[in-house]
Amino acid sequence: MTEGPLSGLRILELGHFVAAPFATRLLGDLGAEIIKIEPPAGDPVRQWGARHNGHAPWWSVHARNKRCIALDLKRPEARDIVLGLVRHCDALVENFRPGQLEKLGLGAAALKVARPDLVIARVSGYGQDGPYRDRAAFGVIGEAIGGLRHLTDHPPGTTDLPPVRVGVSLGDSVAGIYAALGVVAALWRRDRRQGPPGPGAEVDVALTESVFSLLEGALPEYGTLGTVRQPAGGGIATAAPTNAYRARDGIWVLIAANSEPLFRRLATLMQQPGLLEDPRFAGNQARVAHVAELDARIGAWAAGFDGATLEGMLAEADIPSTRAFTVADCADDPQFRARAMVREVEDPLHGTVLHPGMVPRIDGAVPPPRSTGPVIGADTDAVLGELLGLPPERLAALAADGVLRRGG
Amino acid sequence: MTEGPLSGLRILELGHFVAAPFATRLLGDLGAEIIKIEPPAGDPVRQWGARHNGHAPWWSVHARNKRCIALDLKRPEARDIVLGLVRHCDALVENFRPGQLEKLGLGAAALKVARPDLVIARVSGYGQDGPYRDRAAFGVIGEAIGGLRHLTDHPPGTTDLPPVRVGVSLGDSVAGIYAALGVVAALWRRDRRQGPPGPGAEVDVALTESVFSLLEGALPEYGTLGTVRQPAGGGIATAAPTNAYRARDGIWVLIAANSEPLFRRLATLMQQPGLLEDPRFAGNQARVAHVAELDARIGAWAAGFDGATLEGMLAEADIPSTRAFTVADCADDPQFRARAMVREVEDPLHGTVLHPGMVPRIDGAVPPPRSTGPVIGADTDAVLGELLGLPPERLAALAADGVLRRGG
Repeated sequence: MTEGPLSGLRILELGHFVAAPFATRLLGDLGAEIIKIEPPAGDPVRQWGARHNGHAPWWSVHARNKRCIALDLKRPEARDIVLGLVRHCDALVENFRPGQLEKLGLGAAALKVARPDLVIARVSGYGQDGPYRDRAAFGVIGEAIGGLRHLTDHPPGTTDLPPVRVGVSLGDSVAGIYAALGVVAALWRRDRRQGPPGPGAEVDVALTESVFSLLEGALPEYGTLGTVRQPAGGGIATAAPTNAYRARDGIWVLIAANSEPLFRRLATLMQQPGLLEDPRFAGNQARVAHVAELDARIGAWAAGFDGATLEGMLAEADIPSTRAFTVADCADDPQFRARAMVREVEDPLHGTVLHPGMVPRIDGAVPPPRSTGPVIGADTDAVLGELLGLPPERLAALAADGVLRRGG
Repeated sequence: MTEGPLSGLRILELGHFVAAPFATRLLGDLGAEIIKIEPPAGDPVRQWGARHNGHAPWWSVHARNKRCIALDLKRPEARDIVLGLVRHCDALVENFRPGQLEKLGLGAAALKVARPDLVIARVSGYGQDGPYRDRAAFGVIGEAIGGLRHLTDHPPGTTDLPPVRVGVSLGDSVAGIYAALGVVAALWRRDRRQGPPGPGAEVDVALTESVFSLLEGALPEYGTLGTVRQPAGGGIATAAPTNAYRARDGIWVLIAANSEPLFRRLATLMQQPGLLEDPRFAGNQARVAHVAELDARIGAWAAGFDGATLEGMLAEADIPSTRAFTVADCADDPQFRARAMVREVEDPLHGTVLHPGMVPRIDGAVPPPRSTGPVIGADTDAVLGELLGLPPERLAALAADGVLRRGG
């Protein structure tokens, strides 16, 4: 089994829900050892969504490559255990509400006493300072403040339906990736061979800002020209034709034919050479100006075929296209399968579970998970024994006292 | 001015459009020196979207902290210059179609001869191997294959309108963040103090896989239970009420009141205590089952107020809520301003430009950009002089011969 590039690092997660746990999942995929601290009742994600064998299948993936220990952080003994673990860790990733860790006696100052060169990554809704710092973080609110929700909509006047949610916890996930990036960047500075050992760091990632970072040129365009970017529905405001068109059987098929050669190929495939002579569709700019008519023409044509037929015809004509994949389509996709982006993994809690692979892939390696998400407290004994030398009697006493929870 | 954590690294970008240039923009924000190689006609993004003073305002941001040199990579002399630069670089980030760099004599083997411990990050539509490897990468196609497009839609049967595009080049941007993460992870392994110097690496990031990585529990749920996640429009399939509701003046206001205390506060604010006694709305599960009726009630109430009034009332009642921010709202937001997430930057090509800040923030620092996106070839002379020792006469001859382009 290939070791990942971050092999040798040990990272403590004080996370829950999505953002911080996703950050450590990525770091664990890259080879770091992850120790996750949960409350005795477990991370709420253990119960999110549909359950199988009493457990959320998501947990199998979300907590893979993690050693899970359960502590009641309100207890001073638990606080001391955390600080003891921090001494053995390179980084800590957390997503409590700003100020919460300080209340538990686990603020940055206390953590740095335990481990002066610790890298601390803090994920929050709005960031660790500023006037919104203390607001509760809700993903859908943060995504809207980040400017994305306004754009996931049909053009103004098209429909009375609300702008859609992206459909996943986008802000949390992107914040998690940024937190992973920040952790590794700070560790590179700390650990690099050249020069004296570097300092630790505090990494501050806001969900709102993570979403806002995705807006491309919208901010500089607004600043220089005063233009406010508006939603473009299934299309792109500056290119045509590119949209989703519904096949006879209801399947949505994406067609991106917004270059001259591609548009010619599409018109030929549609057996509508008139499209190429129509001045309304001559060149991208004209097509954008008449995109509604053009999309209607393509849509009427697409509606004459089943999705699979349409996909085949478009592929044959070498026009970028695809059905809108459901997760079932993803699971069956030959490319995802070939690159182990979808793979069967054995999980003691579930049997066989489909796991997504690892992004980014390093040196072509597609290592299987070292472990799947375990039960609450599964690794309490092992981790506290190995790193802090707590003997079984002491662990039993702390468990009886409600300071920690042992798995199994 | 604070140096970023990656100060001391030099990274070569052979990128265009969004993904690879976004990766190096993030690495540059974190302090790395970035050298971007463009064709003599420039990266097409220079002309994307609206223009101001003849330049895309986006360029100011997209190429900030980058030194831009222009080379015709089809010329063998240009190839030798690239290999000469690679000797002085820690990493290279590219997003050509797989195989294209090899055709130019700049494949991984040639790059490693020049710099054996180089970290090479390759961003593509589908990855560097597998049956789809050679397909052209189109963002909207990759996002659909990644399973996201299916989810950015209203529930089946709600409307004939197509599923919307997220509204930004999401797949490219997320692939760019992953590429940055992969580069830094590989550099940590290469440069860490402990043990002998490490090897370089090849980092392989696919747009489709980057999008697919955002699907949370959808894949393991499908694998264990056979459930195929479906779109939920403006809401969330497992929580209610949380949606966007239209105010009297057309502003969409997000309200997330999907917990018992929040729902009670909302019903009180709406002066509809009956909502709390209605068995259809008793508990999250019942509310999810009757979400259409519930959303209609909230929507009818919201439509009685202007957006700003509604926002104020909801904030007063401490209910998570916000208007769907346009980029103009983002630009004015006190939190974004307080954290320098929106800031005025002087740009020689534009005057004052609004730039987004840096994610992640390290040690509280919010350094202004060291430079804004320059003209084509702006740094050709300086970079090739400094790193390769090319004298002005030689540069002039290469320019006259069309091998390179010098800035204006």
